[in-house]
Amino acid sequence: MAAQGPIRHGGDLGEARRLFPDAPEPWIDLSTGINPIPYPCPAVEASLWQRLPDPAALRRLEEEAARAYRAEPDHVVAAPGTQALIEVLPRLRAPGRVAVLGPTYAEHAAAWLRGGHAVAETHALAAMTGAEVAVVVNPNNPDGRTHSRADLADLAGAVAARDGLLVADEAFADLEPVESLCVAVPAGAVVLRSFGKTYGLAGLRLGFAVARPPLIGRIRAALGPWAVSGPAIAIGCAALADAGWRQRAALERGRDAQRLDGLLAAAGGGIVGGTRLFRTAAFADAPGLFARLGRAGLFVRRFEAAPDHLRFGLPGDEAAWRRLEDALGTLHRDAPA
Amino acid sequence: MAAQGPIRHGGDLGEARRLFPDAPEPWIDLSTGINPIPYPCPAVEASLWQRLPDPAALRRLEEEAARAYRAEPDHVVAAPGTQALIEVLPRLRAPGRVAVLGPTYAEHAAAWLRGGHAVAETHALAAMTGAEVAVVVNPNNPDGRTHSRADLADLAGAVAARDGLLVADEAFADLEPVESLCVAVPAGAVVLRSFGKTYGLAGLRLGFAVARPPLIGRIRAALGPWAVSGPAIAIGCAALADAGWRQRAALERGRDAQRLDGLLAAAGGGIVGGTRLFRTAAFADAPGLFARLGRAGLFVRRFEAAPDHLRFGLPGDEAAWRRLEDALGTLHRDAPA
Repeated sequence: MAAQGPIRHGGDLGEARRLFPDAPEPWIDLSTGINPIPYPCPAVEASLWQRLPDPAALRRLEEEAARAYRAEPDHVVAAPGTQALIEVLPRLRAPGRVAVLGPTYAEHAAAWLRGGHAVAETHALAAMTGAEVAVVVNPNNPDGRTHSRADLADLAGAVAARDGLLVADEAFADLEPVESLCVAVPAGAVVLRSFGKTYGLAGLRLGFAVARPPLIGRIRAALGPWAVSGPAIAIGCAALADAGWRQRAALERGRDAQRLDGLLAAAGGGIVGGTRLFRTAAFADAPGLFARLGRAGLFVRRFEAAPDHLRFGLPGDEAAWRRLEDALGTLHRDAPA
Repeated sequence: MAAQGPIRHGGDLGEARRLFPDAPEPWIDLSTGINPIPYPCPAVEASLWQRLPDPAALRRLEEEAARAYRAEPDHVVAAPGTQALIEVLPRLRAPGRVAVLGPTYAEHAAAWLRGGHAVAETHALAAMTGAEVAVVVNPNNPDGRTHSRADLADLAGAVAARDGLLVADEAFADLEPVESLCVAVPAGAVVLRSFGKTYGLAGLRLGFAVARPPLIGRIRAALGPWAVSGPAIAIGCAALADAGWRQRAALERGRDAQRLDGLLAAAGGGIVGGTRLFRTAAFADAPGLFARLGRAGLFVRRFEAAPDHLRFGLPGDEAAWRRLEDALGTLHRDAPA
């Protein structure tokens, strides 16, 4: 793959407003996979803004993350978002051959390219065993494809035998029945976990790497001291300790995802897949539907490489569901309000 | 310089409590150079926690920073703290010879060493012209040494002629009469500006790099998207636009610094220097004074390489001033309460 220009991302309502200047406000942003029902943030003490982030509080956060991900505490490092980890990893290795299981989140390939590595997109795990670095997003964004722990452990073993690295991006794993590689993470693997998506707090910037020493120590050193803000440490600690909230979110967002699949199918979409936080579907006229939704003030995610696909985040309340149904043409106008 | 172990930093009250378990609470933390009178944070809208940081809001933040630092808007990139920039810079260059004007903030040398560079500490600007990368902290931490814009521009020219880089860390420049290199930043230079120290909001994680293209673009790319949190963008924007607050802070902290110098001199200290946010002094028995202060619940900064020096941050209220005066033995007990 050659170096790329700027990558288009979801979540930029400025772009939505430029594309559809006449759309009704407020916009409904369905262009990300961020939980629209956020974790109820505890109040942030003033001292958390004021003081340098406390090393002891950071350790407690990493211990809570380890419990939530069923990892060893010594295998977990907090970062200001998984994106920061995606930027760091390519700089920890001499330039080599990187295979990315695609199509997937574009920032992985871009970061390895920026780090001077040769990057190829592959389409099957079996085709990755020859690479020095293998990148697998599990479950995958945008199609929701998953891989078993055994298959990924085999791949980790294959790359580790060549002193290579498996990057398992589990950004969307929290609410899924996916088998996590965090549990007894294999040598030669690093797992990425996102906080903001699950907890609906993407503005906070928090994510985690899970790996064995010495790799986890090199990641910590590359991030440097005070990488995570004081408020992110406190809010992250409270949220990760709340297993009950996470269980309810998995249940409720699972229902939402089913409801969304129903709407997309009723609108002529062929469900490609997704997670409990987003659904991807193929449409006969995806660009036309993208524009119709945009004119109605609903921003969804399109893909240059898959122009017949659209990805939908979950509406956050009944008003948003009704606006989506209306724009999709699936609203039962005679249903009770 | 050889690779180092963990660097000791100020601001870790956990360390203070381990060293002095019987000290009275609350601790008074004078171990950092963070303004003890923070900028009054505007309330943070919930959406800033929830949504991905908005690219348009980030551009506005960088424009406000450019105004505050009198830089060109296209020359400014925001980061989650200057420490994040210190980590990034060494990875943007092939390993080379780095000169750090020292003694100074230890993370510069450590980051370049981690990036595979050869690092030497030098003691005069004139001795740096032969290096590929020159690192100068201006004003310097902990001694407050400053350099003229002309001298630093000459150094930038000398390193640029060899395709090198001058890193001018102006972390403590905001409240000082120092000549900033941000104004028409020379080719071959990158200036670092800290937000948290001046505004007393170190937990927020915000800082800036100022450099010309293409370097500034490479720094932006290395940080990746969404590096700065939504709340940091909003609070930073408000604070940087408030020139009046900054002027008052410079005046008031200048008075505090003079008052602190008076106390340290009265306690037998020889004033080494500093900025309006910290003062460094030499003492005949610095370890003894460090321990005396610690037992009284006052945490100051000591230096392995300069065991006769102690650095003092500013007390934040009259009660803290009186506890410091008491512990230094300079409290006039007959003065009006």
